[in-house]
Amino acid sequence: MGRWEPNARGRLERAALELYVEHGFEQTTVAKITERAGLTERTFFRHFADKREVLFAGSGAMRELCVAAVAAAPDSATPLDMVAAALDAASARWEERGETVRKRQTVIDANAELRERELIKLAALSTALADAMRRRGVAELTARLTAETGIVVLKVAFERWIGDPGQRSLPQLIKECLNALGTMTGSR
Amino acid sequence: MGRWEPNARGRLERAALELYVEHGFEQTTVAKITERAGLTERTFFRHFADKREVLFAGSGAMRELCVAAVAAAPDSATPLDMVAAALDAASARWEERGETVRKRQTVIDANAELRERELIKLAALSTALADAMRRRGVAELTARLTAETGIVVLKVAFERWIGDPGQRSLPQLIKECLNALGTMTGSR
Repeated sequence: MGRWEPNARGRLERAALELYVEHGFEQTTVAKITERAGLTERTFFRHFADKREVLFAGSGAMRELCVAAVAAAPDSATPLDMVAAALDAASARWEERGETVRKRQTVIDANAELRERELIKLAALSTALADAMRRRGVAELTARLTAETGIVVLKVAFERWIGDPGQRSLPQLIKECLNALGTMTGSR
Repeated sequence: MGRWEPNARGRLERAALELYVEHGFEQTTVAKITERAGLTERTFFRHFADKREVLFAGSGAMRELCVAAVAAAPDSATPLDMVAAALDAASARWEERGETVRKRQTVIDANAELRERELIKLAALSTALADAMRRRGVAELTARLTAETGIVVLKVAFERWIGDPGQRSLPQLIKECLNALGTMTGSR
C-alpha cells in the first residue's frame, strides 16, 4: 500500500492536462504525468485505468447529474423543459471548472481517437436522457429526438463558450440556444 | 487513353460495395475491385481518388440537392419547413437506391475511420443547410440549430430505416420524426 497522498487524483488530472496541452496527448506517457505530479505510477493506476480515462473520468457523474435533473423536473415540464433542466445542471458544473474544461476540449479536438471517445460519451448521455424522459412518461420517439436535440444545444453552446472565453457563461449560452430553437418553427 | 467502358463508374461502385460487405473495407484493395468489375485500375482512378471515396462520392450531389430545396422553399416556410424540404428531397433519392444505401451504411458502421469520415460529411451538410437558410434571412443561431436538428432527424430516421427494412419508407420515417419533434414542447 502506498502512503496517503493529499488530493492525488486532482494533482494527476492537473499534471496530465498540462502535459497534453504542452506536448500533445500521444506524446505524453503515464511516467511523465506521475513525474510532474510528484506521485508514483502505482498511485496513477489506483485512480485511472489509462491516460485516456483522465479526460473522461467525470462523464459518468455528469450523466447522473443530468438524469437526476430530468427525474426532478415538475410534472408540468415538457420534454424540452426536462432536457433544459439537465443542461442547466451540467453547465453550472462546467462553468465552475471553466479553465480545466476548456483545456480538456482543446486536447480532445486535436486527436481523432479522443474525438471518437467523446462522441461515444455524448451518445451515452443522449441515451441516458432519453431513458430518463421515458420514465417520466414521454413517448419513445419524442424522448429520443428531444435528447438528441439537447446534445445539439450542448454542442453548439459549448463551441461558442470555448471560442469566446470570458464572455457569456455556458448556462447563458445554453439558454440562448434553447430560445433560438424555439424560433425554428416561427416566421422569420 | 483507355477504351470507353459502359457504366464503368456504376460497375466499380457495385463491385466495391460487394467486396466491402463480403471481406470488410480494410481487406479490400483497388486491384480486387477492378478485377471483380472487369475494369483496369487506371479506369478506377479516373473515377475515384481512392477506395474510400467510392463510399462518399455521392455526398456532394446530395448536399447540392438539399441546398436547392432550401432555396426553393416558399417565402412562408419556417426554418424547420426548409430543413424538412431538404430532407424530403434527399430521402426520396436514398429510398430509390435503398439496397445500395443500406449496404453502404453497414460498411461505414463497421469501421472507425469511415464513421469519422461520415461525420465530417454530415457536418458539411449541416453547414451547407445553415448557410442556405441564412441566405433566406434566417438568423445565424437559429439557422445553425435548425440545421443540426435536421441532421438529428436524418440520423434517427436512417437508423430506423436500416434496422427495419421493408417496413416504412425513409420519407415516411422522416415525417414521423419531424412530427415527434413537434411534440417536444408539448404536454405529455
